[in-house]
Amino acid sequence: MSQNLIPGFCRRKSEVQASVPMFLSTTRSRPGILWPRMKQSIVTLDLEGVLVPEIWIAFANKTGIKELELTTRDIPDYDVLMRGRLQILDRHNLKLGDIQSVIASLRPLEGALEFMRSLREKTQVIILSDTFEEFAKPLIRQLEWPTLLCHKLEVVEGRIVNYRLRQQNQKQKSVEALRGLNYKVIAAGDSFNDTAMLGAADIGFLFHAPEAIRAQFHQFKAIDRYEDLMELILHEL
Amino acid sequence: MSQNLIPGFCRRKSEVQASVPMFLSTTRSRPGILWPRMKQSIVTLDLEGVLVPEIWIAFANKTGIKELELTTRDIPDYDVLMRGRLQILDRHNLKLGDIQSVIASLRPLEGALEFMRSLREKTQVIILSDTFEEFAKPLIRQLEWPTLLCHKLEVVEGRIVNYRLRQQNQKQKSVEALRGLNYKVIAAGDSFNDTAMLGAADIGFLFHAPEAIRAQFHQFKAIDRYEDLMELILHEL
Repeated sequence: MSQNLIPGFCRRKSEVQASVPMFLSTTRSRPGILWPRMKQSIVTLDLEGVLVPEIWIAFANKTGIKELELTTRDIPDYDVLMRGRLQILDRHNLKLGDIQSVIASLRPLEGALEFMRSLREKTQVIILSDTFEEFAKPLIRQLEWPTLLCHKLEVVEGRIVNYRLRQQNQKQKSVEALRGLNYKVIAAGDSFNDTAMLGAADIGFLFHAPEAIRAQFHQFKAIDRYEDLMELILHEL
Repeated sequence: MSQNLIPGFCRRKSEVQASVPMFLSTTRSRPGILWPRMKQSIVTLDLEGVLVPEIWIAFANKTGIKELELTTRDIPDYDVLMRGRLQILDRHNLKLGDIQSVIASLRPLEGALEFMRSLREKTQVIILSDTFEEFAKPLIRQLEWPTLLCHKLEVVEGRIVNYRLRQQNQKQKSVEALRGLNYKVIAAGDSFNDTAMLGAADIGFLFHAPEAIRAQFHQFKAIDRYEDLMELILHEL
């Protein structure tokens, strides 16, 4: 089966190889011309607040579990916050499947899917998020499976027993890695944990950002509408 | 508009913040438990020969331009080969739009779309290819827009005037970058230009590889069916 799928490796017709001399003669005669060198671009986007609702808050609203509305602004130690969240889920006997069902009832923000469809036809897009693959999945599915770099939960028999941060500052490090692959990185995010990513990118935009973030990080252009973000991105490609 | 999309930033109900002390008291009482640390995984796949036909060869077959069947096995200097190809396209007055129309008439390999759909539900996937975004696009669209890291053409008024390699050895470097982001990388490819990527990955598989490649790189398990590749990947996640 496989051999027939790769014609070039199966049959080398002499007529093809006979064309080598002519191929070379025309090629060599071409004058060297310097073309403008523009970098290839890639877009990195935050997920929550930019394309989908804040998952924990939407989950808290759906389930009525008020404590799950707490964020790092209330509990600054992320590890304490996450361990508390997992205990609360456990106390309510909510397994991963239950949680994913609730998240699946959420919808991407209005216009997000159309924005992503249009953007992915024009350039490469990677979602950089500090959420967990398992929580994001029901929403990523609705966004038609863009690549997502984030963290992961540890699940034993359907119960979330722990979380794993793949890497500290993974958004910033991902942008740096993409720049190391010679990409011009265009980034957009909405909150404090995006600002290192925006700063590491060739160009960063605040999208849906609250006033406090805009004021503190006025070096990043702030917009609120997908059509404005699209226009800014297209200008940079 | 934007402020209402991010509920957590707009209203901080006192009832939420009132739950902080209880949240902390239950969290602190939790004994520290060490959970098994498993790495997060990501899959990198070659495009041509693995998911879609060899584009230049398929294009040559469709158009009947024999010279375009030449590959690096006939013209070892890639730059000479590519410049020759671009001249041949020019000589036949084939603009990018014409070429993309021909490529759009190609189809992904049988079973490739179903394989990709299934794989993208299970883990993150990035396509690493030495083709050009513009040539790959009509096929990437049919594969439902997986992320593609590759090279780019320079197009002026529809005419391909040059090509740009984003980076030498970009497949290998992309795998190294993903490992630097603390991913376990599972890679699959079919030909010589994939072997550095397979070697750089945590685990590499030859897929649809010709016999000569299998013999030379016997350190990589070689398979030919998507179901076998899926099984091997799932075993590594």
